[in-house]
This record gives sequence, structure tokens and C-alpha cells, in this order.
Amino acid sequence: SPPTVIINFSSCFLQGILERLDAGEIVIGDGGFVFALEKRGYVKAGPWTPEATVEHPEAVRQLHREFLRAGSNVLQTFTFYASEDKLENRGNYVAEKITGQKVNEAACDIAKEVAKEGDALVAGGVSQTPSYLSCKDKAEVKAVFRKQLEVFMKKDVDFLIAEYFEHVEEAVWAVEVLKESGKPVAATMCIGPEGDMHGVPPGQCAVQLVKAGASIVGVNCHFDSDTCLKTVKLMKEGLEAAKLKAHLMSQPLAFHTPDCGKQGFIDLPEFPFGLEPRIVTRWDVQKYARKAYDLGIRYIGGCCGFEPYHIRAIAEELAPERGFLPEASEKHGSWGNSLSMHTKPWVRARARKEYWENLKPASGRPYCPSMSKPDGWGVTKGARELMQQKEATTEQQLKELFQKQKF
Amino acid sequence: SPPTVIINFSSCFLQGILERLDAGEIVIGDGGFVFALEKRGYVKAGPWTPEATVEHPEAVRQLHREFLRAGSNVLQTFTFYASEDKLENRGNYVAEKITGQKVNEAACDIAKEVAKEGDALVAGGVSQTPSYLSCKDKAEVKAVFRKQLEVFMKKDVDFLIAEYFEHVEEAVWAVEVLKESGKPVAATMCIGPEGDMHGVPPGQCAVQLVKAGASIVGVNCHFDSDTCLKTVKLMKEGLEAAKLKAHLMSQPLAFHTPDCGKQGFIDLPEFPFGLEPRIVTRWDVQKYARKAYDLGIRYIGGCCGFEPYHIRAIAEELAPERGFLPEASEKHGSWGNSLSMHTKPWVRARARKEYWENLKPASGRPYCPSMSKPDGWGVTKGARELMQQKEATTEQQLKELFQKQKF
Amino acid sequence: SPPTVIINFSSCFLQGILERLDAGEIVIGDGGFVFALEKRGYVKAGPWTPEATVEHPEAVRQLHREFLRAGSNVLQTFTFYASEDKLENRGNYVAEKITGQKVNEAACDIAKEVAKEGDALVAGGVSQTPSYLSCKDKAEVKAVFRKQLEVFMKKDVDFLIAEYFEHVEEAVWAVEVLKESGKPVAATMCIGPEGDMHGVPPGQCAVQLVKAGASIVGVNCHFDSDTCLKTVKLMKEGLEAAKLKAHLMSQPLAFHTPDCGKQGFIDLPEFPFGLEPRIVTRWDVQKYARKAYDLGIRYIGGCCGFEPYHIRAIAEELAPERGFLPEASEKHGSWGNSLSMHTKPWVRARARKEYWENLKPASGRPYCPSMSKPDGWGVTKGARELMQQKEATTEQQLKELFQKQKF
Amino acid sequence: SPPTVIINFSSCFLQGILERLDAGEIVIGDGGFVFALEKRGYVKAGPWTPEATVEHPEAVRQLHREFLRAGSNVLQTFTFYASEDKLENRGNYVAEKITGQKVNEAACDIAKEVAKEGDALVAGGVSQTPSYLSCKDKAEVKAVFRKQLEVFMKKDVDFLIAEYFEHVEEAVWAVEVLKESGKPVAATMCIGPEGDMHGVPPGQCAVQLVKAGASIVGVNCHFDSDTCLKTVKLMKEGLEAAKLKAHLMSQPLAFHTPDCGKQGFIDLPEFPFGLEPRIVTRWDVQKYARKAYDLGIRYIGGCCGFEPYHIRAIAEELAPERGFLPEASEKHGSWGNSLSMHTKPWVRARARKEYWENLKPASGRPYCPSMSKPDGWGVTKGARELMQQKEATTEQQLKELFQKQKF
Repeated sequence: SPPTVIINFSSCFLQGILERLDAGEIVIGDGGFVFALEKRGYVKAGPWTPEATVEHPEAVRQLHREFLRAGSNVLQTFTFYASEDKLENRGNYVAEKITGQKVNEAACDIAKEVAKEGDALVAGGVSQTPSYLSCKDKAEVKAVFRKQLEVFMKKDVDFLIAEYFEHVEEAVWAVEVLKESGKPVAATMCIGPEGDMHGVPPGQCAVQLVKAGASIVGVNCHFDSDTCLKTVKLMKEGLEAAKLKAHLMSQPLAFHTPDCGKQGFIDLPEFPFGLEPRIVTRWDVQKYARKAYDLGIRYIGGCCGFEPYHIRAIAEELAPERGFLPEASEKHGSWGNSLSMHTKPWVRARARKEYWENLKPASGRPYCPSMSKPDGWGVTKGARELMQQKEATTEQQLKELFQKQKF
Repeated sequence: SPPTVIINFSSCFLQGILERLDAGEIVIGDGGFVFALEKRGYVKAGPWTPEATVEHPEAVRQLHREFLRAGSNVLQTFTFYASEDKLENRGNYVAEKITGQKVNEAACDIAKEVAKEGDALVAGGVSQTPSYLSCKDKAEVKAVFRKQLEVFMKKDVDFLIAEYFEHVEEAVWAVEVLKESGKPVAATMCIGPEGDMHGVPPGQCAVQLVKAGASIVGVNCHFDSDTCLKTVKLMKEGLEAAKLKAHLMSQPLAFHTPDCGKQGFIDLPEFPFGLEPRIVTRWDVQKYARKAYDLGIRYIGGCCGFEPYHIRAIAEELAPERGFLPEASEKHGSWGNSLSMHTKPWVRARARKEYWENLKPASGRPYCPSMSKPDGWGVTKGARELMQQKEATTEQQLKELFQKQKF
Repeated sequence: SPPTVIINFSSCFLQGILERLDAGEIVIGDGGFVFALEKRGYVKAGPWTPEATVEHPEAVRQLHREFLRAGSNVLQTFTFYASEDKLENRGNYVAEKITGQKVNEAACDIAKEVAKEGDALVAGGVSQTPSYLSCKDKAEVKAVFRKQLEVFMKKDVDFLIAEYFEHVEEAVWAVEVLKESGKPVAATMCIGPEGDMHGVPPGQCAVQLVKAGASIVGVNCHFDSDTCLKTVKLMKEGLEAAKLKAHLMSQPLAFHTPDCGKQGFIDLPEFPFGLEPRIVTRWDVQKYARKAYDLGIRYIGGCCGFEPYHIRAIAEELAPERGFLPEASEKHGSWGNSLSMHTKPWVRARARKEYWENLKPASGRPYCPSMSKPDGWGVTKGARELMQQKEATTEQQLKELFQKQKF
Repeated sequence: SPPTVIINFSSCFLQGILERLDAGEIVIGDGGFVFALEKRGYVKAGPWTPEATVEHPEAVRQLHREFLRAGSNVLQTFTFYASEDKLENRGNYVAEKITGQKVNEAACDIAKEVAKEGDALVAGGVSQTPSYLSCKDKAEVKAVFRKQLEVFMKKDVDFLIAEYFEHVEEAVWAVEVLKESGKPVAATMCIGPEGDMHGVPPGQCAVQLVKAGASIVGVNCHFDSDTCLKTVKLMKEGLEAAKLKAHLMSQPLAFHTPDCGKQGFIDLPEFPFGLEPRIVTRWDVQKYARKAYDLGIRYIGGCCGFEPYHIRAIAEELAPERGFLPEASEKHGSWGNSLSMHTKPWVRARARKEYWENLKPASGRPYCPSMSKPDGWGVTKGARELMQQKEATTEQQLKELFQKQKF
């Protein structure tokens, strides 16, 4: 007989993110909107911009609902890459009347509407900007963030996240702007154990972010969970050495990327249209959730590739600690136990934890390798240095460099 | 500069399925609801029943919309495994008041509502029944199908599909019942080139189905597209030899399964919770669509694993023949051309057909193999024969056999 | 404590090959000379000719000794590709004075010298000829074989083997010539289950060879052991259907080739300088030996890739049936038991049969696939047919065809 | 037409190892005797002792000849594990009369005999001892080395090699003893970039060895060439930092081991009877030789797994620098050019450098992974520390530890 489970989706009412974390609660994040909505037909890979909040709010709303149902305690507004400077570069496939302000406002409205259906906080998010990459100064870059923040304040989101930064300098600027709001700020960078693009190690990045005002720090995107957890561990050690306190957060990819270089999965030859064989299983996610918890991380979510069932896997793995299962578990047996009634005996034999824990799933692709060599500047030290010095980061400079180097 | 494309989602108005196929049109099917909704949190793996039509109509509606937007010309009612005898076996996780009739009616209502948003036909579907497997007689099995048919008639769907049959005998009974309606009937079996579970070869299966009244025949589910196309080819040859005419149809898995045995992907150790590394890319689907077309198949869709972007890949591959792209292509560059503006030169270099056509995507899983040995009766000839003779197909008999054989 | 074993290398004196096989004895063949000596530096890949018998007799002698010590009951004279017409095509890297006759005579002398050191028979061997491929007539081709046979008669070898034939017609001619000697004749073809290059199925090939005078029939080279055993099984069934009697023989590759096409491992992209990851382990060979025995094969050996330790693995697997181990087993513990004294506990844990039987050895090559697509005519049906009709088998014709087809 | 090559096997007469290296010459080492002779049937895996020098001198002689012919400039006496204390532990499969002195003497005689056939130096070798592992004191361990040295002096070898040491302390003792002879001494450790078993980093190991008297330092065995070159690079940097001068040497495995832990390939589940899929190709070796040369290494050879054709690959890769090819290249076309006359056009197409350089060879094993997790103490930090402290290195202690830890 199936185990009796208590499905409780109202563990904590009206509490803010810091109250929850300070009380030792586990907070479950949500998954990656741009990748999920790309597969559903609402986001264009390449630009990756969130105009769907205006064009197809029903699709965004439904994805929020699925994450909520899967156990997410935070709904992030779908405002990734929604800064004005980024949206300007969109192609003509988006109508002109869909301004940045409209995209950000609609994102807040949808998230807040769905959050009320359950127990979730709404977090407004900003991410890296073209302005920084093209060497605009601090004031200009901050102005870009401030414009998004104005919407978040008007819509009164619960807290703020600065995420997906490759340079700690820009992340610090973002945190400084977001702190002006008085709301709690989380900050995650898309870096690996080698540190940010200027070579600042993770421990130092964390220290700078906390000093700038972030209450929660960690990593998101660009790397698989194993790599992300290594990076967060280095952040934790950096904070301890500096005698600083902050909550830890991780939102990794749902792709296996043991073969990534320093700059993450974008350099893998499979990015972004051939990543399927790397997609993690729900059991991979359960292992990740357990490791993250053991490392002391309490804000545990996902990024690109995370679908609702991946988030549910976090909630199911940590159900013993939390005391309840998410709503979507009514359609899921723990560790495969929903197979226990299958007609075929050998399928019934899969209805147990040991089976799925130890399975080494085949790719069904005997003509494909198991790892790839990343593309990129890697081989050309000079090029990498130029880029790190930001001397070659404008489009034109990169192009010239590219042609000169005969990549 | 990106190619100019005409997005036309109203190529043909009010025409029925046979008018379209008879006119030489390509008809694009939709993808697999039970797998897609399992990942979204609305279907339970194991039972795989569609009570979500009543419990969460918004989730079913959204998925229909995504397929429509991706290019589907047919919306299948979400009535898979919705026969009364199957639904009775559901666990207590579904409320009693959700009767089979309600599930089937809601499924029709949702599909019809969404179909009106574009150019799509609605097809009511029936599939294999527990009644047949437990040796109920022809009249009893037909009564089960007839009950679903009554709903389809009341709701006036456009045509009917008998799909996912392992035994041609049961498929023929289903077709005979559906033909009573006077509506066009399509019939697909979930078999491979070795034929049905009693050993009837695909060519003969096709002949029997057409003689029973099916206007469209083919295969769905259980195998990857390469295997499915081999099977449809054998059906085609069988029909030609018998001088019978019918349209051809294929709706394969979106998983690579070169290592399947006769009974398909259910016997693979990865079924159903470790199939991720086998998921096909959009480029794999484009190759499938082209091969299917070249083989003379004109009803081309997908089954388990097919997400909206996979269906869009069929529509994009066959856009030259059809003269238009689906709506969702406004968020997709053909063959990766949306990458042509990427900041990194090596990512821009991926914005071309040759790149994605030839990519051998890595699994990111160096500790995993590329193929698996299927579980199952395979090794025990005696057991397989018993099962084929239906002497061991009740649950109890299978269990006894299992214990005796010490699987 | 290690098991007591009786090392007996004189089980049967002075008996001929047929007496042994008729008495139900297992006869163990030897391994592949051209591949082993290529790695040792004495044979040139491409021509693959055996002039080492004259140039470096000590190297040939040593290899014979190693196979004898490993358990071979037959030493094949190193006369592969030693027909006059083949040797004429050698490049100028071989001195002119090294005539075909000298090569064949030296091969016999060396094999006979080593055979006396133990219990082994000497078999003279002929293989496919350029004359046949360039459409010389039956008399001419037979003359080529007869020239080699003269040497074998003068040197009085124990029996004769016609091996490595792709066309049964040529193999039959070879057997007819060899039968003129009055000595027993074995005949093996390098074909797979699909049959010879003209499409004659294995069963028919076997029948023709036995009718021509062969007492032992089977396959050698071109395919891995699984494929070879399938082919021999078809030969066996063909003989039974024709009510003919013959002993069965198999000498497969020591490479895993599940991805071969009809023409075998030469078409694999790895042939001949990248086959290392495909090399079989000693445990793979033990499984092969057991399957061959169970199939009724009693002349069990190897071809290209088989090193002395692979032959020893056959002898060790069949030691229970034969009652003795080969001499070289004094330097080998059965199923890894020589590890039972290792300093590291986890290495000691490998000293058991279950461990090695179930090990799935990693390639250490995460950037490489597990299977390859064969090169070849395969894709061009017209080309294959031409070749099968022997209309395009001269060098010039092939070249023209190649250019025309733009391979 | 094939390139004209000068085969010159007498580039330098009568010069010692240091004269050659000081003059900037490349010195090519030989391959791994214990693995090669295990496959030929003369060495027992587990003990790995070299009694074959007495029991089967013809087999040892032939292997020396093959390496000489392949281009080796140094023939190492086959005295690996031939210290008295190691030989005492051999099982009863070796006759008592075969004393350590006899084994060492025969090894010298054979190597010197073959060296005269070409241009090669003879090096006497010592390796790690059971005495050190069981905590005998410095005087006792040195006495063991001295006993072997006496034979090398009596037989007047050209120089001496201390190789296969896991602890730099023992290696230093060995070098000190060997230096008593007045002959040049080379010293290689079987360590990776993490350093020796007590945690001494490679740079420091090199410094200690040079200070103890070694003129040539480097690594051998335990790791693949990529890992070995990383380690030698660290040694080089250590020497430069300490302003010490020495020649560099590398003799890696001929197995791909990207998945090794700190203690090398012995901990891989495939060791030693399932390593076949990891065997390097000749092209892998050419890449290794080039990288080693570019790193400044001038004594370039191989260890376990290196067969004569692998050594030939070193000599062929460096032929432009050296001005000549080895004798065995008369049976080898550079970069596959011996295939240029093949009957099949697609095989002829493999007769070029680009083809073999870029080939990603398939394993032919779709059910096997590409990497393995090493066995070992790894997981148990306590155990590793104990071992590093040498508190648990006797057989009995290890056994107790093993049982306690329930490995």
C-alpha cells in the first residue's frame, strides 16, 4: 500500500523570506522560465527576452502555477533580461508597443496573481546588462537597474534577486541599487569555482556581495549542480573567513556539464539546441537537494532546464525535514512506487528507491560521445586576457578579434 | 538577415481529415499528453490516466494551445486510458465523483474550445483496454469502446482514432465500433517491425485494420522514429500487396530506443523515470519528419516525449512543402539562425544548418552506457509463448509465472 | 589456496585432426599472425604479407611458441596472403630474392619446428587471391592455389585450411585443389549471417564446401564472436537440412564489432589503426568459448586481434571438459585469483569470477562514441550490385566508379 | 608515392646516456615488460615478477629485440620487482632454484646481448620494495637495493634507473645507493600531480631526487600520458624554482585514465584484466611524444601497456627532429600511408594524417560506460591518513583495517 503523506501547502503564512530562512526553514525556488517557455513556444533562444508576459500571459501564468504546485516557495517575476537596454536589442519579432515597462509590470501582475493561490513569495529580479558589457559607467548601469526596481516597488514584490552576473563588480552595483528599496536582497552569480570573469574567486565575490547589502548569496545557472555546490562551498568558506553571515542559495542548471570550461554551458557545442541528452532525472535532483541541504544551503532551486517535476523532486527529497509534500505529489509516488501495480513484473520491480538511485541511464545514442570539448577563447590566452580586461567586449571588437584569430 | 517567412495558420478551413489527406495535404499531429503532463505535475506515472481534464482543465487547455501554436492540425481529446474499466483501477488519489463520462466529456470540451482558436480538427481517441487483456469476450470489449464513443458522438468530434493497441484483434474490434459512428477512423498500433503480440506482422495488421474500416493506418508510441518508420513501411507494403488503399500515419516516441526489444520502451530499464538522456532534439525530429514524408506518410505527429517544440520541428521541416510556418515559429529561428547575433563568435558560428545537422550531442554522463539491455520475458521463451497465447495475461497468472521463473 | 591444476600438454599423440574431432575432442586453434606481428614490427598493414618468415624467422617462431604454450593444438603456417599473385603486388620494401616459394617453405619449416615442442598439428593455409577478384578463370585461380599446395605437400603438413574467403565460389575452388592432396581439408569463410558477397546464404555456403570435400567448415575473421557464432549456426542448420555431416570451426576477430555492416570490420572507420578500444578481454573470450562449445563447435580458435592470452582463455574455459590446463596457465590464476594476495583490499576483492564476469569495462575515452557507422558502398545500392556482379572489381573499375559516385 | 625515408639505426656510437642528453639528443625508452609478457604467457599478474629471464630467456630476448627494432635507445634489464624481498613472496609456481641473483644476472645478460644488435644502452633498474612498505629502516632497505646493484656492477650496465616509487623517501634511498656505483642515475616516480603518498608535491620530489644524485628525473607508470606530463611539468617548475638542473624523463601508461584517483590505475575497477578498451592507439602516442618534446622532455618512453608499435610511434613522430626512422618503420607507413593501395576506395581514403589525427575511435561496447569510479580508500579519509602515516601498511594491519571498515 502507498505511504500516507500529508500534503500541506500552507506551512507558513505571510512571513518574509528572511523570517523563513532565519527560522531555519528550507525555501524552495522555482525553475528556469526561458528554457521551459522556449520549448513551449513563447521565448526565442538567442535574445531570450520575456515579452511573453505581455504577448501570452496565460502561458507564463500556467508555468508559475506548475512550479507553485510542485513546491516552489518563491515565484520569481519573469523579468530575466528585461532591462531596457537589453530589450532594445530585440529583433523586430516583438511589437514596438511592448515596452520594457509593460513587460516588467505584466510579469509582476502574473506572479502576484498566482502567488495568492498558494504559499509563495514574489521576488523581482534583475540580471546582467549589455550596458555593463559595453563599458558604460557605474551611474549609467545603476540607472538601468533602477528603472526595473521602480516597477518592483510600484507592484510591491516581497523581495529582490540580483541574479546571473558574471562580473562581481556589476553584481555589487545591482545589489546597491536594490538595497535602496529597503527590501531583502538575494544575489547569485553564474560563476564556477574559478571565480568571476575578472578572476575574483567565489569567496571574495560572496564577501563583496554581502558587504554591498545582500542577505542571501550563492550561484545560479551556467553549471550543473555538482559544480554549483563546489562554488557555493567556496563562497561559504570566504564568508566564514571574513566573519560575515549570510544565507546560502543555489539554482543550478538541470543539465549534466562535467565538461564545462570556466565560462559554463554556453561554450558547450550543444548549447542551446542539443542539450537534451544532458537533462537530469528527478533522482539526480533529489541527490542535489540532499547535498545542498547537507552543505547548509537553505534556498534551494533551479535554473535553465528545471521543469516543474524537477522542483517537485527537491520538495520530495526534503519532505522529511519539512514535514510535508507539495501538492503535485498527489500525482507522484515517492521513488517510483506508483509502478507497484504495473502489469509487468519487471516494471513492478522498479518501484523502489535502490533501483532508481543506482540506475545508470543509457543515452540511446551509441554514435555520440559522453563529453564534449567546450568552444571558446580557451585556447587563445591572449584573447581571453583581452576580454577579461574588457578591451574586447564590444561587438565590433569581438568581431575583429574573431576574424584576426581565425576561429 | 533572417529569411522572410509567411506565418499562416489558416491554410484550410472547415475541411475534414480525409478531404485534407485526399488532397495531398500534410497533416501534423500533436504530442504526448501523459508524459508532458506528468512532468508538469498533473498525471501520475503508472496509472497514466487523464482525470486532469476534470481536476485541472487549465493545464490541459494550455498544452493543447501550445501544440496548436506549434503547428498541430489535429487536437486529440485527452482520453488516453479513459475507458471505464481502466479508470476503475485508479488508486484512491482520484476523487470518486470524477467518473469516466466526466473525464471524456471534459476532454472533448477542452479540445474543441482550443481548436476554435486556430485551424485544427478534434479527434476522439480510444486505446487498449484491461478488459481485452483479461480475456473478456468481443462483445464486452466492444461495449467498453462504445461507451467512450457515445461521448465523442454527443460532443461531435471531427474524427476518431483507435491508438496504442498491441494486439491487432483488439484494434480491429475498436475500429469496428468507431466505424458505427460514420465518422472517419484512423488506427495506429504500438508495435515494431516484428509485429503484434501474437506475432501478426505489420503488413497483415494494416490489411486487417483497413478491412475493418480504417481510412488511415500506422503506428504510435513504444519505439523511436527509426523503428516506427520501418514498421509503417512494412504496413505500406502489406497494403500494396493486398491492393488496398489507406493513408499512412506515424506518431513515434521522442526517445532514442535503438536497444528496444519486441515490446518497446516499457521494458527498457530507464522507463519511465530515467529516459531523459534519450530525449530527441528538434533536429532529430526534423530528420524524422523528412524521412516520414519521403516514405509517403502524410499524417505525421508524435507520442510520449513529444513537447510543443518537437511538433514545431515537424512543421518547420515541411514548411517548404506546405508553404507556411506555424505561429510558434515567430519565436524560433530556422536551424539555429536566432544565434546569429550572439556576443560570442563561437556561438554565432552555430547559427547554421550544417552545424546542428551534424552535431553528435554528448550526454554529459561518462559513467553511463549508451545502450541498455531490456528487461522482460525476452530470455524465457516459454513465458513469452504463454503470454502470446493469452494463457498468462491476467495479473494473477503473470504473478505466478513471475514467481515460478524467479525473475 | 589456489586450485590444484594438472598442466598436461600431451593429451593426444600422433593423432590427426579428424581422429581428434571424430573422438569428440576440442581442438583449439591459434590467433591472428598478421595483426600480432604488425604490432611487433614485422608485418606491414595494407599489404599484410608474411615475408617475415624469411626476414625474421625468430619473430614468427616466438609467436608460434606463445600460441602453443597458450594451448593451441594447431599451428597454422604463416602463409596468409602468400600466393604468388598477391606477393607480386608487394611494394619494394621486400627484397626481390624473397620469392613466394621461399616464404611458404620457411613458414612450414618454422611451424613444424615449433610443433615438435608440444602437442600440435601443423596446418598449411591458403586464402583469397587477387586472381579471383580480377576475374581470372577457374583454371588460373586453381593454379595459384596449387602452387602453394606443392610446398605444403613437400613439407608434409598435417592438414590444410582454406580460409578468409568472401566468395563461396572461390572457396570451393580452393577446397577442390586442396583435396587433391588426400589430406583433411578445413574451410572457413570471412562472411556474416547475410552470406557471401554474391548473396549466397551461410547455410548454402557450408553445403557447397562440404560437397567440395571439406571435412570441417565455419567462419574466420571480419566479425566479432557473436556475429561469427550466428553465422556458424546458420551453416550448421544448412548442413542438417541437407543431411550432410561436417565438423564446425570458428576463428573470429578479437574486436567488438556490433556496428559492422555486411562486409565486416574493414569498413569500420577504425580499421586498421584505431581498433584498440574494441579489443576483447580474456573474459569476453571465455564467454565466446563457452557459447561456441554449446553450439557444437569443436574447432575453436581466433583470428585478427587474438593474442596468446586470448587463446589461453579458450583453453581455461574449456579445461573442465578437457581435463587439463595449458602450459601458460602456470602464469595465470583462473578468473583473477592471482590477485588474492594483493596488498590493497579492494584489489584482492577482484579475485573472483563474478567480478570479472560482470564488469562493464570503461573506455577511458569520454570524447569518443561507442559505435561507428561503417564506410562503404552500403549507401549506393547500384554500386554494391555492380560489385556483386563482379563488373566493378578491378582496381580501375573501382576507381572510376568511386569518382563517378563522388564518395 | 611513399616518402623516401632514411632508416638509420646507428646515429650515435658508444656514447653514454648523459653525453647524449647533454648534446640535446632525444633518447627513446622502451615499453612495459610485465604487461607485454603477461599477455604472451610468461609473467603472472599479481606478483608481476620477472623469473622469465631464467625460465624463458627466448621470450624476454625477443621482446627486447622488438623494442630495439622499434627505436628504443635504452634497453632496461628485466629486473622489475626483482629484489630479494619481493621474490621471496612469489608463490610456489616458481622453482626454488631460481634465485634473485640468477634472475638479475640473466636479465643483464639478455639485455646486453640484444643491445649489441643495434644502438642501445643497457640500464639496470630497481623499484619499490616490500621492505620499505613494511617499515624496515633505511639501512635494511638500502641493503636490498645494494644487492641488485652488485649484479648490475658485475655485469657492467651502462647506467641505472630507480623507477616506480610511490614514496620519495624510498626513491631517495634508492638513488643514494645507485650513486655509489659512479654510474649515471635516472629516477622516476609513479605519482600524479598531487604528489607522493605522503603528500610531497612533484616539484619537491624532483628537488630531493636531484639533490640525492639523480641526473635524470621524471615519472613512470600509474597514469596516462596527459597526467604524467602534468606531473613532469610540476617537477620541472620545482627544479627551476630551486635553480637545479636535470634532464626530464617520462614513461607513462599506454592506457587512457582520465578517471584515475590519486593512486593511479591500480584502483580502477578494470585493473589489471579489463583494461583493453583503454589501450592507446599509435596516434595517441604520437601526440604524447610531441607534447613531451615540446615540454622539454628528452628521455621519452613508455611503461605498462606500451607495445613495440607504440615505441615506434614515438620514433616516427620525432623523426623530423632526429633525422631518421627506426628499423621497424620499414613495415609501417607514416600516418597510414600503407593503405594508399587498398582495393576499397574508402579504405584508401584513410591513408592520410588528418584522418587518423581526428578519428574518435568507437569502443564497440554500447553497454559499457566511458569512465569508472576508482575503488579505494578514497572515501574513508581516516583510512587514507593511517596508510599515509604508514601505520597500516603491513598486510595484517591492512586486513584488520579492511574488516573494520567493511569495505
